[in-house]
Amino acid sequence: MKNIALFLMGCGGVGRQFLQQIVSCRSLHAKQGVHLRVVGVCDSKSLVVAPDVLTAELDDSFLLEICRVKSNGSSLQTLKDLGVCQVFSGPEVTQKVIDIGHLGKSAGLAFVDCSASAETIGVLNQVVNFGCCVVLANKKPLTVPMEDYDKLVSQPRRLRHESTVGAGLPVIASLNRIISSGDPIYRIIGSLSGTLGYVMSEVEDGKPFSQVVTAAKSLGYTEPDPRDDLGGMDVARKALILARLLGRRLNLDDMKIESLYPEEMGPDVMPLEDFLVNGLPLLDKKIEDRIKQASANGNVLRYVCLIDDVRCEVGIQEVPKDSALGRLRGSDNVVEIYTRCYEKRPLVIQGAGAGNDTTAAGVLADILDIQDLFP
Amino acid sequence: MKNIALFLMGCGGVGRQFLQQIVSCRSLHAKQGVHLRVVGVCDSKSLVVAPDVLTAELDDSFLLEICRVKSNGSSLQTLKDLGVCQVFSGPEVTQKVIDIGHLGKSAGLAFVDCSASAETIGVLNQVVNFGCCVVLANKKPLTVPMEDYDKLVSQPRRLRHESTVGAGLPVIASLNRIISSGDPIYRIIGSLSGTLGYVMSEVEDGKPFSQVVTAAKSLGYTEPDPRDDLGGMDVARKALILARLLGRRLNLDDMKIESLYPEEMGPDVMPLEDFLVNGLPLLDKKIEDRIKQASANGNVLRYVCLIDDVRCEVGIQEVPKDSALGRLRGSDNVVEIYTRCYEKRPLVIQGAGAGNDTTAAGVLADILDIQDLFP
Repeated sequence: MKNIALFLMGCGGVGRQFLQQIVSCRSLHAKQGVHLRVVGVCDSKSLVVAPDVLTAELDDSFLLEICRVKSNGSSLQTLKDLGVCQVFSGPEVTQKVIDIGHLGKSAGLAFVDCSASAETIGVLNQVVNFGCCVVLANKKPLTVPMEDYDKLVSQPRRLRHESTVGAGLPVIASLNRIISSGDPIYRIIGSLSGTLGYVMSEVEDGKPFSQVVTAAKSLGYTEPDPRDDLGGMDVARKALILARLLGRRLNLDDMKIESLYPEEMGPDVMPLEDFLVNGLPLLDKKIEDRIKQASANGNVLRYVCLIDDVRCEVGIQEVPKDSALGRLRGSDNVVEIYTRCYEKRPLVIQGAGAGNDTTAAGVLADILDIQDLFP
Repeated sequence: MKNIALFLMGCGGVGRQFLQQIVSCRSLHAKQGVHLRVVGVCDSKSLVVAPDVLTAELDDSFLLEICRVKSNGSSLQTLKDLGVCQVFSGPEVTQKVIDIGHLGKSAGLAFVDCSASAETIGVLNQVVNFGCCVVLANKKPLTVPMEDYDKLVSQPRRLRHESTVGAGLPVIASLNRIISSGDPIYRIIGSLSGTLGYVMSEVEDGKPFSQVVTAAKSLGYTEPDPRDDLGGMDVARKALILARLLGRRLNLDDMKIESLYPEEMGPDVMPLEDFLVNGLPLLDKKIEDRIKQASANGNVLRYVCLIDDVRCEVGIQEVPKDSALGRLRGSDNVVEIYTRCYEKRPLVIQGAGAGNDTTAAGVLADILDIQDLFP
């Protein structure tokens, strides 16, 4: 039986779903000859860890208790009373986590980052240095400046991050296969935001942009402040991750990122309510004109990430109506990959690109995929 | 530097492309810290092997010479004169290949089957037993009776066969990810024959079936005898491979396989010329009627493989016009995968599903993917 020791950072929606999937997959994984041993869990404030990282684990009922406590909004601190783990909090958490990485050095240990924090890069780079594996759902460690990025990816076989682009969709795995087969990648173009995919396909039907965004917000498709989606930064991070995978040495600052609202309507300038009521409608005309222009060219508009030999940008592009991107409706993600083998007709991967369940499933698949690195 | 020793079985279009891709990827793979060491190559008649399997290799100029000789229609025997290898032929080939597998036992060795023969299963099951890895482009070893299949897949991590379904398309890799994340797969439906995909999308436009098949033959889209495509056996093999991956214990005999021509027009009964001139036109009316019926239901016809909890079959099905399958045009393959995570909107993978280059690229990606199993 392969014994894969895991340490989980971040215990929000994705992290909790991940723990629950581990528990529910016990018999499936046993059949595959694998046991996932969760040795510790931390959030930004606290850390719970098994009494002996090298041999013990947090058992399934305890993992589910962690999920229960965290979804109630309570602190991991409350688990201290259960007495089956060590609990740390405050400034000593980071050092303790690094100590765990150091212990895992010889026996193999995977650090799973399901947080949404840029702060984890420090810990991750230290444990990579110890020889630990790293599995990310968190995009931010992959969008840090190149110098830190280089350290993180210095052992590429020990790093997996399928869920950072398109949730569980096999985008990264497929790109890695193409890269290792020596098939040169000419262009990647994709709709990698379910929210913006929904918005762009709805405005295509003639609905005003402001109305579509307001509806998307009330349906829960957007962040609480829709400008977090409309600004394009989340898509830009995904584009940067893909571009760097292709060997491009870029930073976020180098990228052209189109925001769907102007600076003067930004969160620092205009209150949310004001933006929704007065700001948004001012944007309708411009989008409508662009749609008409695209339609006259036989195209539709999509908010895409576009990577080729010279460009790595995110924003609105005209795409052919009858392409996979052009036919996209609703909140699916889609990626078109053009290579020498897929030159005229791209390799297309499409499906739900968000959600705690699909994201956690991608993380779990990544971990099973690195099993050969464990004794 | 990882040193991955390979033995290639089969040296037709795919095998030769594979050898050429190995040679052209040398610097890329060196950057990834991997060296592919080809220790031997065989076809159904002859075997060339490096003087010492444990340390030596067939060098790049020799690999290219193998490709040249084989594409000229000459025998591997002619390489004897070059003196940098051992050459065997006739009945001793099989035993020598098994001996090589035995030698590879300790140091790690991957057997790559790019032949199209059902005969390789004997050798493959022996070398699996020695602990060798197996990478298949050849579908037939995976469609043998369950007893032999069970032996072949007894070390699932050491077996890869991406190119057996959809050439280089990441169908198997994606299914394996879904399976290991515990996401139950409800249904797979796909168009897995470029030829039949082309035929079905052309007849949809109102062209007679006979005319489309004749055109496809003259364009080189079909086998020399188009009945090899129209009979559905190639798609059935792919469906069986997918169903077995999902844990279904089935044999080819258990499957419902729809042939697009009736028995009395089979190759054993009717000469090819007769079939093309007199047989085919008799089939037009029935297909036309089915297309009209489908259209009345808002659907189109596709020749698909369909796997769910109870079915594993191949044949013509009505699919919604606006699904990925329904929108398919030309010779692309497409697979729709429905799971708990992708319940209403499937995970879709689409792209060229045939060709020596994409097939060989899939084999090469498989090999890079098992690198962690090598010392």
